[in-house]
Amino acid sequence: MENRIIKVQDGLKHSDEAAIILSDINRLYFSGFKSSAGLALITKSCAYLIVDFRYGEAAKAQVKHMNVEVYQNLLRTLRELFKKHGVRKVYFENNGVTLKQANTYRDMLKDCEVTPVFDTYLDAIIDNLRIIKSDDEIQKIEQAQKITEEAYLEILNYIKPGAVERDIALELEYLMRKKGAETVAFDLITITGKNTSRPHGVPGDRVVRDGDFFTMDIGARFEGYNSDMTRTVAVGHVSDEQRSIYETVLRSQKTALQKIKSGVAAEKIDSIARDIITSAGFGDCFGHATGHGVGLEIHELPTVSVKNKTLLSAGMVITCEPGIYISDKFGVRIEDMVLVTPHGYKNFTTVPKELIIL
Amino acid sequence: MENRIIKVQDGLKHSDEAAIILSDINRLYFSGFKSSAGLALITKSCAYLIVDFRYGEAAKAQVKHMNVEVYQNLLRTLRELFKKHGVRKVYFENNGVTLKQANTYRDMLKDCEVTPVFDTYLDAIIDNLRIIKSDDEIQKIEQAQKITEEAYLEILNYIKPGAVERDIALELEYLMRKKGAETVAFDLITITGKNTSRPHGVPGDRVVRDGDFFTMDIGARFEGYNSDMTRTVAVGHVSDEQRSIYETVLRSQKTALQKIKSGVAAEKIDSIARDIITSAGFGDCFGHATGHGVGLEIHELPTVSVKNKTLLSAGMVITCEPGIYISDKFGVRIEDMVLVTPHGYKNFTTVPKELIIL
Repeated sequence: MENRIIKVQDGLKHSDEAAIILSDINRLYFSGFKSSAGLALITKSCAYLIVDFRYGEAAKAQVKHMNVEVYQNLLRTLRELFKKHGVRKVYFENNGVTLKQANTYRDMLKDCEVTPVFDTYLDAIIDNLRIIKSDDEIQKIEQAQKITEEAYLEILNYIKPGAVERDIALELEYLMRKKGAETVAFDLITITGKNTSRPHGVPGDRVVRDGDFFTMDIGARFEGYNSDMTRTVAVGHVSDEQRSIYETVLRSQKTALQKIKSGVAAEKIDSIARDIITSAGFGDCFGHATGHGVGLEIHELPTVSVKNKTLLSAGMVITCEPGIYISDKFGVRIEDMVLVTPHGYKNFTTVPKELIIL
Repeated sequence: MENRIIKVQDGLKHSDEAAIILSDINRLYFSGFKSSAGLALITKSCAYLIVDFRYGEAAKAQVKHMNVEVYQNLLRTLRELFKKHGVRKVYFENNGVTLKQANTYRDMLKDCEVTPVFDTYLDAIIDNLRIIKSDDEIQKIEQAQKITEEAYLEILNYIKPGAVERDIALELEYLMRKKGAETVAFDLITITGKNTSRPHGVPGDRVVRDGDFFTMDIGARFEGYNSDMTRTVAVGHVSDEQRSIYETVLRSQKTALQKIKSGVAAEKIDSIARDIITSAGFGDCFGHATGHGVGLEIHELPTVSVKNKTLLSAGMVITCEPGIYISDKFGVRIEDMVLVTPHGYKNFTTVPKELIIL
């Protein structure tokens, strides 16, 4: 994490500049310390994690690469630190900082005779850092996915006529946590029958029936890092229509996946997946992007979507998840999460994706 | 929810004004529909929930008191609606809206020749609504607390020497969800021994030992609404020091609680709790506020803290949770959640708070 701080310091143009990092997720990225409040202050030569009483003892015990300050009066603490380091100008994040926070700090900084900068300069530095995962981050994502897959393989035994969506979600989460997940990466999607036509359907009281498609969009979080995978399975038997649509999505997913490598534009991956589905006549039934980055956040950069010209680069972690959703009937989505490498990709997702009929 | 929308419409000064509600939590408050993206547009005469493809089908099925629009191109959809309703000026939230979102909408609205207003006008209207809970909201909060207490009473059987903090958190969450919780209200705090000196300690691998204080700060979420309660119990036996500090916190909590009623300033409740702890010589060991509002968010208005002059009012739901934390030794916090009534309060928390030695 020292390296991350140095990159921000390198981005400061003069010794009187500093950065204040307010968003929970970026504060975690730089400090390694999880909290619901606080800020990181990075000057040209020093880095501080500033927290309130509730987090003081834990932060001091855990954070060794930053100076931990516990404030009683935030304005006083900031004024002292600005004075100590001769800070006259402070960059803020544009993303993740609310208008209310910005106004609060604008007032405080006026009081300190320090100029706040609310533009995208700091975001660009942080985004460029976060989009490329370090080995340590990759290991955590891989572990999160390993936990997800172990839970997935166990839960397949539960999916049978009579099982309830909500119960399956709960059992899956329990399995993940028992296997070491910190929590789930997002509200798990475990939906059956007609509900599968909703890409972001919510597990409820619906009961699994013979002939259903059952979709699981699931992920665990391990030491802050998320995983993401989707599998659609059939219960009992499938119709010809179901099989045909499943095979179309699978072909779309596999074909797009094979094109992932450093140097390819994100939009290219999206269009490969989308073209196959459109050619099969289901273009209108695939209304979301083909993928997204995964890391400390479940949706982060880069977006793998129409018109996103970002070039994939080694170290990015992205999903590939085309789907077809037939309103009021059923839907299919298949999602893997991969690491982009110089000449291709490493697939973190190892469980089969051929159609399983339970 | 129609009433809530009408209140916003009443706040629009002219027929060419509208409000756009972007934050997830306020969108949920007005629409009743949970999603990770989308916006509510409220004009003088109409209300729209505008979502993307992923949420379209579910939103249309669930939301009946607003017009649901599914957009492909958000700018186009907004332009059409602005034109239809003659909108020339749009208020945004100040809280919960990021600088990035504000910039995105600023650009879009420029394109529509509509003036955006980024101040606290809309927040004030929404805050005044949300701070007073409706009967329906109160029932959900009460149910969330009921689930929490049932799980709490069961988990007491698990807390014994050898039990692990993390496992207790997981079992508690599992119990809550089995009893109908949508999820937990926050990352449950189940900490033992030295960890209890950290108000926001994180459950880890620490093992319960004879003579420990064990603190549970726990809550369930039911249909979007949260509950919050803290109990500290002893394992095996307590020292005189532990008992004395427990009794001080209990006295502080009970005394402050008794003063809660409509018309009393929030700061008054805080000072009653704080004075007792300070008189006992532990003022420096109680570094957080005495309480906070609870509703769709686990921390919301009003804050029950030093210098908050907000007058409590019937329909507010607040916590009362003084604590004493002795660094590197142990801590005690006792928290109830209550509904403010015209002449006092109704305590949602019904489990005993006298010292339990397990």
